Amino acid sequence: MKQDQKIALAQLIRRQRWAGLATVSVDGEPLAAMVAYAFAEDFTAFYIHISTLSQHTKQMLERPKISLVIAEPDKGAGDPQTLPRASISGDVEVIERDSASYASIKNTYLERLPASEQLFGFGDFVLFQLNPQSLRFVGGFAQAHSGTRVTLLECAKL
Amino acid sequence: MKQDQKIALAQLIRRQRWAGLATVSVDGEPLAAMVAYAFAEDFTAFYIHISTLSQHTKQMLERPKISLVIAEPDKGAGDPQTLPRASISGDVEVIERDSASYASIKNTYLERLPASEQLFGFGDFVLFQLNPQSLRFVGGFAQAHSGTRVTLLECAKL
Repeated sequence: MKQDQKIALAQLIRRQRWAGLATVSVDGEPLAAMVAYAFAEDFTAFYIHISTLSQHTKQMLERPKISLVIAEPDKGAGDPQTLPRASISGDVEVIERDSASYASIKNTYLERLPASEQLFGFGDFVLFQLNPQSLRFVGGFAQAHSGTRVTLLECAKL
Repeated sequence: MKQDQKIALAQLIRRQRWAGLATVSVDGEPLAAMVAYAFAEDFTAFYIHISTLSQHTKQMLERPKISLVIAEPDKGAGDPQTLPRASISGDVEVIERDSASYASIKNTYLERLPASEQLFGFGDFVLFQLNPQSLRFVGGFAQAHSGTRVTLLECAKL
């Protein structure tokens, strides 16, 4: 991935807060949902805070492999399939409330999503960390690039 | 689902054009991607036109069960997890270029996505029809409703 594409990917991740999520049921059926996300400054971790009442949360707990797609929103004109988007896939782990990292991840999350604070008081909400393994970035029409955790680390410096 | 929620769902589907897609690999791993979508007037079919060069297209051809999430875009303020979104899941079928319905579905697609016309001239693009089986509509915080193809039919009349 060239420097200008890495910059475009970093900007995309930083500008958006609302992403598509793909999970899989125990029967192997896909489910698409929407989640708010935050991320570690070096892009090595993405954070999701969602309710166990949701089907996708149950699926994440049962099959902790997910994919997140972050995209520029459609402006209602032109071809949306030329808009930049990135699919980030990997394993998720639950950040337990009594773990050493919970408070600092919660702070990182609330810096980007301050209006979500009250949800941290709800017993049914779980904080997940996505550890990216693979990446597919489409910068525009016929501009697709594959990458890994290392690519994300490089983008985060830009 | 109450009348006001059905109206909200119909408006969401009609206002957006750019949705999150969940597919599953042959190994059972989820993949999230973005696709433009169009739909039959009665909401019994959704149309996706994408390249076989994309990984999610390959997965759809191998495992024709998908989920599409249509959401209101984040405005960058407040809690995005209060925004309306709908997950529509079901089987997909390929609409072959020489089939009787291809031309009319292409027209339906291009009415909403006119800037995508040139892609119909590309040999690597495939037109898919999603036949909705299940539906999950979240109208706002703690306002989740389940539905089926029949719910969508009812919404389309509103």
